[in-house]
Amino acid sequence: MTTSSEQMVWHGWGDPARRSGLPRAAHALLRKELRLRETTVMPVAESSVLMRPPALPAAVGEQLAAVVGAEHVRTDAHSRLLHSGGKSYPDLLRRRTGDAQDAPDAVVLPGAHDEVRRVLEVCAAAAVAVVPFGGGTSVVGGVEPLRGRFTALISLDLSRLERLVRVDRASLTATLEAGLRGPAAEALLAAHDLTLGHFPQSYEHASIGGYAATRSAGQASTGYGRFDDLVVGLRVATPVGDADLGRAPSSAAGPDLRELFVGSEGTLGVITEVTLHVRPTPETTVYEGWSFRTFAEGAAALRHLVQGHVAPDVARLSDEEETRLTMTLAGSGGFKGRLGRAYLRARGHAGGCLAIVGWEGPPTAVRARRRATTAVLKSAGGLRLGEGVGQAWKHGRFNGPYLRDDLMDHGILVETLETAASWSSLPEVYRAVAEALRGAFAARGQSAIVLCHVSHLYETGASLYFTFLAAAEAGSELDQWRAAKTAACDAIVASGATITHHHAVGTDHAPYLGAEVGEVGLTALRAVKAALDPTGILNPGKLLT
Amino acid sequence: MTTSSEQMVWHGWGDPARRSGLPRAAHALLRKELRLRETTVMPVAESSVLMRPPALPAAVGEQLAAVVGAEHVRTDAHSRLLHSGGKSYPDLLRRRTGDAQDAPDAVVLPGAHDEVRRVLEVCAAAAVAVVPFGGGTSVVGGVEPLRGRFTALISLDLSRLERLVRVDRASLTATLEAGLRGPAAEALLAAHDLTLGHFPQSYEHASIGGYAATRSAGQASTGYGRFDDLVVGLRVATPVGDADLGRAPSSAAGPDLRELFVGSEGTLGVITEVTLHVRPTPETTVYEGWSFRTFAEGAAALRHLVQGHVAPDVARLSDEEETRLTMTLAGSGGFKGRLGRAYLRARGHAGGCLAIVGWEGPPTAVRARRRATTAVLKSAGGLRLGEGVGQAWKHGRFNGPYLRDDLMDHGILVETLETAASWSSLPEVYRAVAEALRGAFAARGQSAIVLCHVSHLYETGASLYFTFLAAAEAGSELDQWRAAKTAACDAIVASGATITHHHAVGTDHAPYLGAEVGEVGLTALRAVKAALDPTGILNPGKLLT
Repeated sequence: MTTSSEQMVWHGWGDPARRSGLPRAAHALLRKELRLRETTVMPVAESSVLMRPPALPAAVGEQLAAVVGAEHVRTDAHSRLLHSGGKSYPDLLRRRTGDAQDAPDAVVLPGAHDEVRRVLEVCAAAAVAVVPFGGGTSVVGGVEPLRGRFTALISLDLSRLERLVRVDRASLTATLEAGLRGPAAEALLAAHDLTLGHFPQSYEHASIGGYAATRSAGQASTGYGRFDDLVVGLRVATPVGDADLGRAPSSAAGPDLRELFVGSEGTLGVITEVTLHVRPTPETTVYEGWSFRTFAEGAAALRHLVQGHVAPDVARLSDEEETRLTMTLAGSGGFKGRLGRAYLRARGHAGGCLAIVGWEGPPTAVRARRRATTAVLKSAGGLRLGEGVGQAWKHGRFNGPYLRDDLMDHGILVETLETAASWSSLPEVYRAVAEALRGAFAARGQSAIVLCHVSHLYETGASLYFTFLAAAEAGSELDQWRAAKTAACDAIVASGATITHHHAVGTDHAPYLGAEVGEVGLTALRAVKAALDPTGILNPGKLLT
Repeated sequence: MTTSSEQMVWHGWGDPARRSGLPRAAHALLRKELRLRETTVMPVAESSVLMRPPALPAAVGEQLAAVVGAEHVRTDAHSRLLHSGGKSYPDLLRRRTGDAQDAPDAVVLPGAHDEVRRVLEVCAAAAVAVVPFGGGTSVVGGVEPLRGRFTALISLDLSRLERLVRVDRASLTATLEAGLRGPAAEALLAAHDLTLGHFPQSYEHASIGGYAATRSAGQASTGYGRFDDLVVGLRVATPVGDADLGRAPSSAAGPDLRELFVGSEGTLGVITEVTLHVRPTPETTVYEGWSFRTFAEGAAALRHLVQGHVAPDVARLSDEEETRLTMTLAGSGGFKGRLGRAYLRARGHAGGCLAIVGWEGPPTAVRARRRATTAVLKSAGGLRLGEGVGQAWKHGRFNGPYLRDDLMDHGILVETLETAASWSSLPEVYRAVAEALRGAFAARGQSAIVLCHVSHLYETGASLYFTFLAAAEAGSELDQWRAAKTAACDAIVASGATITHHHAVGTDHAPYLGAEVGEVGLTALRAVKAALDPTGILNPGKLLT
């Protein structure tokens, strides 16, 4: 058995052998447009990373060992380093420069729900902070080992909770333990010819519990639904007892308390099992590329699709900048032929926008749905680019985080953030956030590249996913990052959109939760927190500040 | 301007002129099968109804008048009587026999959100209980004027909150005030060629705020979604301030606090505005009848429909008993021809089950969807009965509550209750609840008729809606009702289903909320209640006991 984090390099994403390096054309483009100096900025050696000495009182360590077994209480430097934060740009920056001062005092790996509950009892009694740790893929500081008012902190690694507990084929539900990562969960379900259909970019490492705790959305969520839509039931260990929620497909028995624990980011309890709506493994999957003359034209097409109930399962639309960079990055890769500039120019689509649409399911249904989607996209001005483009997207769909490591090696700041808004406010939110990002870098005398795509469709609106790049400001990288992040968040709040569509709150967005839910909302959340976690040990500094 | 309740007779449902009387054949059947004695049990005269003297302190009355205007603080007997409870069988029984002892001390009608908030401030300061009152159609004791530890109580009638605040056509959302009843809301939306598509049996009188506060489900909710699915945003007045929730079609910004106020049944705050997902007014609506040999065969067909993503918008399936009674009640009405016994017998469908399916939308979409549904229903053993049956259902879809008044006049106990469960547990839940109901009456030496239909489809399960009838036990009607209700609720809890799919908790189901959400769930709810309603004035005795 391996912990999820053991498969991830401590200073980057996943398995370094999977990295393919920055394509030469892309590097040239970035060097020019970001006015990049010729530096490489590599991570320090693991042995040079600074980490505070472990401070877990010996008696507590013994109590924890009595619960989970001595071999599952780890205090070695490597384990602590692997749990010293998530995978955000600031997280990686800190670790790459050798700063893991805040590493947890111990990593504790319970093997069952009851062990989780007893670990919480031990920690509540001993005033030890607990950071629940699933895949460790948070990009918003969700697993940062913040001690708050506590002197000791453990990382509660859930990777031993990796069982498929139950399958109900007739009801299309499956109960999965929280520590299962995406591929392991899919493998267990595939044995029953079932799938979750949940494929976020973090899929290869993120966990079932993490998906639920952060309201994850995947690349096919337009079709399968967001992860919160898939949650039928939950088992949660809290310091005051267990919660078992979800007795029916739907209920009118008061407030939906599942929705209180889903998205609670480890602050109200530890999700140990999730009962999920699953689907038959699709017999066919088809992904294809489309081009639109402008982002606005493409967005209108997607709106017509979803409001006309003919949305595909995968629907994403890059803006002009993201399309341009995608085509450059593609180089001699998959994006050839119809994505060639000459082809597009001849059809009035030069400088246009790339869309990826995809359908999954039985062949007859896929055919019929594809026909319906196609009719709408064509009449909305779309130009079909074919399945080659779709296959290229599919091939690289989980590679973004690897590319980030390459970019950071080249001294490039690279970050993503996302939001969602109603269709009518989407153009203004798009403009405001992109301008805020460009403005924040311009104020520091820097050039930035700001990319955006629409990634999830709803009848009432859509999400916007931004990627931005700039030459990292050597020595003040975190200030630089913070200035851009703050500008974007302020713009999101001012435009009335949500502070996060699927990355969650963590520490990065915690200052904005008040703007999202208001003082009464915060009062309600704090009241629940005080009632379920009276000593406040659960994930200090996340969600609620 | 009229209050919603003014259109409802105080001892029954709606406008008495709409009642059509019990068909002769139905009366004969019930007389025989329920062993009914030849009695009629009519309501007492309004002047004989007993009501405690109004106890609102004069100073509080003046403060409330200063907020809403003196003409909107009503203490006359008729207003108090109209707000002395909802429309459950026990509610009506009590009022018909002249018992409105618990009537509120005053009925207060605020005209705007800010007035609601100020009314709450006055009542919190003066320790006066507040029962939010929308359409007053609760069938679970949701608007019962229970005083709890308070000596005075007002009914907060929201019917003056009747504006369409905003329409966002591009995003398909509309913001409606809470006091709007179904038909008024639809009329305002129809001017924009939009609809909510929300048509519960209580549609003619239930309110937008009530729908949200109780997680209503309508007859077309399989297609349009339950009311909680339609809620994009909420404005809520609480004793500690306002909550404005919902900034995007979807969000990962922590727990979904909309889901805390949706279903809160007036115990956490007063919902004053709801932003809802609306749809274009359907150009076509088609409803038709189908027959299945058995309830199990029909349920399997519905499961295949919804899991194959070809569910109609309306889908309901009566069991053998409900079908039999429907055919008898139909008499010489709309259910002729293909629903004739000879036709069904010839096709092996004698004693079978009636299903109603319906599609709404653009003609081409309706045609295509109908074709897909039909293929599945046929291969699952269904026999098409045609649109005449569908039209007959549509014609009578809001008449059930009127029939109840007629039945009560004939000395018949008639009650409904509902639940939902996963597809795999549905047969056992069905069996257990029906047996519990029959057993409860048998234990009192009585015959009962127990009917059931499936009314809402989900990929993971469905709802079951039970109607039961027996000869009312003169003098101990409430004991008789309670025995049956308790037996059914116990069976629902024991079988793992939800205590309510769309009627909500109110007072009737409050004792079962612990079984639904567990001790930790109750702790969370109580904590929120204490934080938002510190004096506990909001709807005492509902939801949380």
